[in-house]
Amino acid sequence: MPFTIGLDYGTNSARALVVDCADAREIGTAVVDYPSGNQGILLNSSDHHLARQNPADYVFALEKATLLALEAARIAEPSFSNDQVVGLGMDGTGSSPLPVDQNNAPLAYDPKFSGNLNAQCWLWKDHTSIPEATAITDAARKLRPQYLAKIGGTYSSEWSWAKIWHCLKVDPAVFDAAYSWVELADFIPAVLAGVRDPLAIRRGVCMAGHKALYAEDWGGFPDKEFLTVLDPKLAALRDRLFTEAHDASAIAGNLCPTWAEKLGLTVGIPIAIAEMDVHYGAIGCGVDEGTLVKVIGTSTCACAVVSAEKTVADIPGICGIVKGAILPGYFGIEAGQSAVGDIFKWFVEGVLGDAALHGKLTEDASAMKPGQSGLLALDWNNGNRTILVDQSLTGLLLGQTLYTTKAEIYRALIEATAFGARAIVDRIKEYGVPVERIVCSGGIAEKNALLMQIYADVTGCEMRLSRSSQSCALGSAIGAAVVAGAHPDFKTAQAAMTGLKEISYKPIPENQAAYQQPYTLYRELHDSFGGVTKSADLGHVMKDLLALKAQQSR
Amino acid sequence: MPFTIGLDYGTNSARALVVDCADAREIGTAVVDYPSGNQGILLNSSDHHLARQNPADYVFALEKATLLALEAARIAEPSFSNDQVVGLGMDGTGSSPLPVDQNNAPLAYDPKFSGNLNAQCWLWKDHTSIPEATAITDAARKLRPQYLAKIGGTYSSEWSWAKIWHCLKVDPAVFDAAYSWVELADFIPAVLAGVRDPLAIRRGVCMAGHKALYAEDWGGFPDKEFLTVLDPKLAALRDRLFTEAHDASAIAGNLCPTWAEKLGLTVGIPIAIAEMDVHYGAIGCGVDEGTLVKVIGTSTCACAVVSAEKTVADIPGICGIVKGAILPGYFGIEAGQSAVGDIFKWFVEGVLGDAALHGKLTEDASAMKPGQSGLLALDWNNGNRTILVDQSLTGLLLGQTLYTTKAEIYRALIEATAFGARAIVDRIKEYGVPVERIVCSGGIAEKNALLMQIYADVTGCEMRLSRSSQSCALGSAIGAAVVAGAHPDFKTAQAAMTGLKEISYKPIPENQAAYQQPYTLYRELHDSFGGVTKSADLGHVMKDLLALKAQQSR
Repeated sequence: MPFTIGLDYGTNSARALVVDCADAREIGTAVVDYPSGNQGILLNSSDHHLARQNPADYVFALEKATLLALEAARIAEPSFSNDQVVGLGMDGTGSSPLPVDQNNAPLAYDPKFSGNLNAQCWLWKDHTSIPEATAITDAARKLRPQYLAKIGGTYSSEWSWAKIWHCLKVDPAVFDAAYSWVELADFIPAVLAGVRDPLAIRRGVCMAGHKALYAEDWGGFPDKEFLTVLDPKLAALRDRLFTEAHDASAIAGNLCPTWAEKLGLTVGIPIAIAEMDVHYGAIGCGVDEGTLVKVIGTSTCACAVVSAEKTVADIPGICGIVKGAILPGYFGIEAGQSAVGDIFKWFVEGVLGDAALHGKLTEDASAMKPGQSGLLALDWNNGNRTILVDQSLTGLLLGQTLYTTKAEIYRALIEATAFGARAIVDRIKEYGVPVERIVCSGGIAEKNALLMQIYADVTGCEMRLSRSSQSCALGSAIGAAVVAGAHPDFKTAQAAMTGLKEISYKPIPENQAAYQQPYTLYRELHDSFGGVTKSADLGHVMKDLLALKAQQSR
Repeated sequence: MPFTIGLDYGTNSARALVVDCADAREIGTAVVDYPSGNQGILLNSSDHHLARQNPADYVFALEKATLLALEAARIAEPSFSNDQVVGLGMDGTGSSPLPVDQNNAPLAYDPKFSGNLNAQCWLWKDHTSIPEATAITDAARKLRPQYLAKIGGTYSSEWSWAKIWHCLKVDPAVFDAAYSWVELADFIPAVLAGVRDPLAIRRGVCMAGHKALYAEDWGGFPDKEFLTVLDPKLAALRDRLFTEAHDASAIAGNLCPTWAEKLGLTVGIPIAIAEMDVHYGAIGCGVDEGTLVKVIGTSTCACAVVSAEKTVADIPGICGIVKGAILPGYFGIEAGQSAVGDIFKWFVEGVLGDAALHGKLTEDASAMKPGQSGLLALDWNNGNRTILVDQSLTGLLLGQTLYTTKAEIYRALIEATAFGARAIVDRIKEYGVPVERIVCSGGIAEKNALLMQIYADVTGCEMRLSRSSQSCALGSAIGAAVVAGAHPDFKTAQAAMTGLKEISYKPIPENQAAYQQPYTLYRELHDSFGGVTKSADLGHVMKDLLALKAQQSR
């Protein structure tokens, strides 16, 4: 009976999961926090856009989490032994690129650079490269509009070309010392496979296609002529990246003797091509045509697939339609909200200063009706990834009186993320991507019934939960099961290894009706402050909210 | 050596002050909290617009505060005796009307009505009558535009006709049982003088002119034809109000034997005509042409005077230009912000839940530069009295990131009230009212140096503090000194009895420059959400704030 290990590199920690390929029983798991910085993130107090990570943390967590998960598996199931592990898969946040030297060692390992924030991994949510992202968008609009069509119209500061270019501008010493750059998610398989040459790393099309403008249609990365317009050094870097990117049907490499010994696993077992965390998460949630998967955590990612045999229109504001990005043989469609759980955490822990309040606030907020608070918020504390693709946006709260409570604000923040979620669903449906149900994963989706009900009421979709609480790690383990031959393909593997929890959140008709007006008002603020509408008439917004508040308080 | 007593009826408590008419030495004072409700305010949890007070609280506080202040005076100055008190003056919040019976007893005293919120005093900040205020404005716009010209263009839900009409609509039993209505500020002198007939109360022009559309130009109150359009019962009520209103040179009455005995004062000493708290406060601060007085407390009131021999243009959005309202012989000009201290209190006590945080937040906020927080707020948690005259507005905060701190929000709220203050100064200057300096009074002005400096930087005016910490009560005592003949007129009385503290807050040029852009952005939001601008282009607002934040963080 074969097992695989799925590794999931999140924002603050990494998880390893030992999974039975027959039925997805999760027999051992372990989470290891990244030891550096503030909850694993290296910050700069004078620039809130900056978010970096120490690459050594990833390797530390790789070894420790895997060993602990294996130990847990042996304790839970005494018949289990490490040699039953037939493959490894992994996913990570993205785009989180890090500079490496000619031997594929992170520049951050070099004592010359170890204290330099620019030599670390540039975490997905680092927004320091907003000017570069804008410049890439502007250049592509003029010279290569086809690039923008596939990414929703705007290149993001969360993506690798902008980050690498920003590094070149603000710290040329780091840029020049970097032989190549590699995504965290591609870096881990290369470590496990003992790859010592960046050019030999087998990389995933998921990250390349969604974050680095890679597409077969135009021969891989943006051409050198275009990159030269940005900076000739970026054109030169193109030769030190890669030419072929792979979907999850490919093998990234085989476990090298050194790491096999460290982990107590069999030398040579296959390592799956990595994907972004939520993409493998979508697989772990059973993504299929018609099923939208949302992984709701610090941020939210929404994934959908459409058969590669169909034609998918370019969708404005949807930041990626990439063939093979999620499931081989399908277009992978990704959208996201740059902050969800992070917004609640900011308010409760950052502003109110008491993490213990989450429960009480949820309880109080659950007693309110839609619109009863009179509040309306924009969920942009970390910018807007979809559908505006603009990180230079910030949060907004309006409707406060002298009696507004913290629970009302808490509910308004949840509602704001629900409105943001609906904007995404509406947009992709409008362009022909079917959304028949929403399957969720992530800690917040599982723990917060209030949020799930509000999302059902606001989107009008039934909300379900993935059976596994570790969908991303499970998806990675499924990828490993496929490349190890435990299942012939993803369809079979998903049928055996994924499922739903029984609980279902269905829209409550009166709540769904009550949310129509606040959503319309949300879109007015969204389009005004997002720059879509140039002549907004907002004089009615506060009055409408007061009227709704009065009506819902009766 | 004569003394007078000034009584000041605030929102949560009443104060009595024993003052030396020669030099304004305050030899005895006492504050008595209103015993009923929530900090003296009767609330309705299902309607945040409602704010009422128990009239019995006023009489309770009248006796207790006066006796305690006299006792304190005798202790502080053994040579003092009660018979040196030659007059009494008083001020109160407004418009705070209460229904009375034919014997001038508050309806709330009647057991039939004592538990009825509509039979209590309708506190100034009660906003339940928004629909009636709108209807009065609409009717006046069509039929009597001259009424609106004197009150800035809009009748407010804080004013008596709207409140009384709302009572008539929602609780006709109370309206019908009320023989007349009287302002809190006029009610107290009548109690002291033992007036048993509402028609015999000598009332102030200050409250009548600013809040009840009373003007000599059109023969007192709105004519019956106009009132009949609103409701025939309001026209009938007009006959049970009064025909002549007085400025502060008049006497409201003389101390009756009953109250002389209760207070231990001389029977028959004169009682000054009452004014609104901040109007006597302006006198206590030394208001004169060119000096704008701001009383900064839970809300803020700004007062200016222009000689009645000059012509004063009607000023849009300025809710009152009334001859004799502040100083006899001058037009009194009043503007206000419906919440100032109340907003800080809401955030710190209501949302953060810890009143002890004010000090620490002020300290942290003091370390920030203008614009450094990236935040911008609208100070409308209690509506906007001036210059929009619209209570159906609510608070707004924008610019939040995942790292925004409570101290940054606290500063943004202070800045919002400063921007609101500048909007008022700019408007009255634009219409020819000179503002050469600003003299402040009130607890917040005295205690919060950060706020005073921000106001100086935002308005570009030097900010000074009244020498007395009890400007309103002092102004009432000055009024008493004039009617008692201790001074021949207000000019002489003010010269002897008012002054400034040494400390001065001057605009810091670089801060003043740095606040220009945020103020412009504030006005864009102000005009958009306030309904002034019908085609706003707000896509730049968050980006401009982020750019300013980056610049000011360097």
